[in-house]
Amino acid sequence: MTPPSLDLTSDAADLLQVLIDVPSESRDEAVIADAVEAALRTTTHLDVVRDGHTIVARTQLGRSERVVIGGHLDTVPENANLPSRRVSVDGEDRIYGLGACDMKGGVAVSLRLAAALTQPTRDVTWIYYEAEEIDSEFNGLRRLADERPDLLAADFAVLMEPSNAVVEAGCQGTMRVEVSTHGVRSHSARSWMGDNAIHKAGEVLRRLSSYEPRQVEIDGLVYREGLNAVGIRGGVAGNVIPDECVVAVNYRFAPTRSAVEGEAHLREVFDGYDVVVIDAVDGALPGLSHPAAQAFVDAVGGAPSPKFGWTDVARFSGLGVPAVNYGPGNPSLAHHRDEFVPVVDLATVEAGLRSWLSA
Amino acid sequence: MTPPSLDLTSDAADLLQVLIDVPSESRDEAVIADAVEAALRTTTHLDVVRDGHTIVARTQLGRSERVVIGGHLDTVPENANLPSRRVSVDGEDRIYGLGACDMKGGVAVSLRLAAALTQPTRDVTWIYYEAEEIDSEFNGLRRLADERPDLLAADFAVLMEPSNAVVEAGCQGTMRVEVSTHGVRSHSARSWMGDNAIHKAGEVLRRLSSYEPRQVEIDGLVYREGLNAVGIRGGVAGNVIPDECVVAVNYRFAPTRSAVEGEAHLREVFDGYDVVVIDAVDGALPGLSHPAAQAFVDAVGGAPSPKFGWTDVARFSGLGVPAVNYGPGNPSLAHHRDEFVPVVDLATVEAGLRSWLSA
Repeated sequence: MTPPSLDLTSDAADLLQVLIDVPSESRDEAVIADAVEAALRTTTHLDVVRDGHTIVARTQLGRSERVVIGGHLDTVPENANLPSRRVSVDGEDRIYGLGACDMKGGVAVSLRLAAALTQPTRDVTWIYYEAEEIDSEFNGLRRLADERPDLLAADFAVLMEPSNAVVEAGCQGTMRVEVSTHGVRSHSARSWMGDNAIHKAGEVLRRLSSYEPRQVEIDGLVYREGLNAVGIRGGVAGNVIPDECVVAVNYRFAPTRSAVEGEAHLREVFDGYDVVVIDAVDGALPGLSHPAAQAFVDAVGGAPSPKFGWTDVARFSGLGVPAVNYGPGNPSLAHHRDEFVPVVDLATVEAGLRSWLSA
Repeated sequence: MTPPSLDLTSDAADLLQVLIDVPSESRDEAVIADAVEAALRTTTHLDVVRDGHTIVARTQLGRSERVVIGGHLDTVPENANLPSRRVSVDGEDRIYGLGACDMKGGVAVSLRLAAALTQPTRDVTWIYYEAEEIDSEFNGLRRLADERPDLLAADFAVLMEPSNAVVEAGCQGTMRVEVSTHGVRSHSARSWMGDNAIHKAGEVLRRLSSYEPRQVEIDGLVYREGLNAVGIRGGVAGNVIPDECVVAVNYRFAPTRSAVEGEAHLREVFDGYDVVVIDAVDGALPGLSHPAAQAFVDAVGGAPSPKFGWTDVARFSGLGVPAVNYGPGNPSLAHHRDEFVPVVDLATVEAGLRSWLSA
């Protein structure tokens, strides 16, 4: 499809609907990236760089502080939730449609501010990136961090993932491991000749059930950890005693614990069993004691919450840049067919950021 | 391929090798059935009927007693175990190859006897049937039982499944059920919003682990029951608390218990959980107190054993015909790539049957 011409001065809800109606499933972001790039290039105060389908637009005002404001352009696959719709439910004005919440609402606000704030009090690096919803090898922000870290250099970063229009600080780490039990196959008619690996997994599940996850307070925020089976598989055939059972476990851990420490902890919890790490990423400390973060929280108002899920704020944290999540929409609606964003959230977040960048 | 001409007077091991070298995976038995039918039709003392790829050959001597001697022509899929090989291992002369044990060894012996015994002391119904190794809807013996029960009418039946050349009497029943647990999905970063169904399956596995199967004595034989998980599955995605977990359970039960009684027992064992019966078949009582069975055991010699697995003897039992398993080869080797039959077993079983049918 031909990229639509984006009017960055139009109402945020209208702009959001235009953005939703440009399908942009991960790995298919060319059209929306073209539209965003073209709109940003009509400004005179932004230095625009394109890398793949990731767009970086920077003010170059020589301010004493530089901040990143980022969001991704891609969505999960369509689920009979296009085109966009504007509906009032229980007196709340909402925009429905694929990506409304995750996270074209944030992108719409960000684009309006990028165009409008020609003289922000902090230099701003606006980032619109590709492939957040799929394997990180494709992630545009990861690629910039690896290949163009200069473009991400900043004193502070805001990721506009949905956060109910309040600041969600840091993020927890996440790790997936597989815990396996082993036995001996036999015909199930002579089960005493074998050794049932699925029966042995009962003890693994018992340890998971009885596990008491920590609640860790950092900068006044309480991070709740979690340790859960997210999958289980075993069995050879309906008449065979199984010789292996694999429990897939997901561990979510507070950002004071590194992935390496998390792995050591899981090896203790599952002592006596095979434990294989499938993937693991560190979380991000909230960093609210950092002056730039404090200024941000003061400007946008409200009480910060901890971010329980893992988000790309951890990539900034890995570069030494304190970062928070702050965006319109309820994160629990992400990836749901009926995702929506309240129009009031768009206004709240826009006002918060505008206040911060004008102070 | 063209059906080979079978020489039913050749040595049993040689005949077996010819039979093995005619591939006859279930649903592909046409060639071997053609060969068997043609060979039996060269005799004058047998009345031959073909039904699909199932061959029935009967003496019609007006004896006071009629017995069935049956075996299946099909095999499981090839597993790099063709063509046949004759090898001496540890001084034991063996025939290796797909179906050597399960159960072309029994078929070879049966074909030789069918041709040789022109005046057996009991009328014999020799049966060579198709599709034993797959879903019972295709089973040739099942089809005869449903559509031509007259062809199966007998006082006693011998199924030549491998039994180490000793009589294995009756068979146990078998039932598969699925035991399910249920919970509530949530994102695994906020696991406390959900309810983990996999964790709940721990109690199901605990009941299985602590279950003490019965040992039931019938006609002097001890049937060992078994209750085992043979499969387990659960999980939505690596970041989702799962809302369902399904444990596939196989119950093997002594033939004094019916499938209906077995189901009631499992519903007690798994009280509090969803239990769905996938399939269930009754076993077969050993029936060794029946005069025809006793005469058979006396003639072939040796001490009968209980049959733990389910076999087609249960189909005869269902028709009111007492039946036993008696054939060459170790049943534990069935379906193994390296299955074989000791040549001595062929001779032992042939001598046993010949003695019984000549007394």
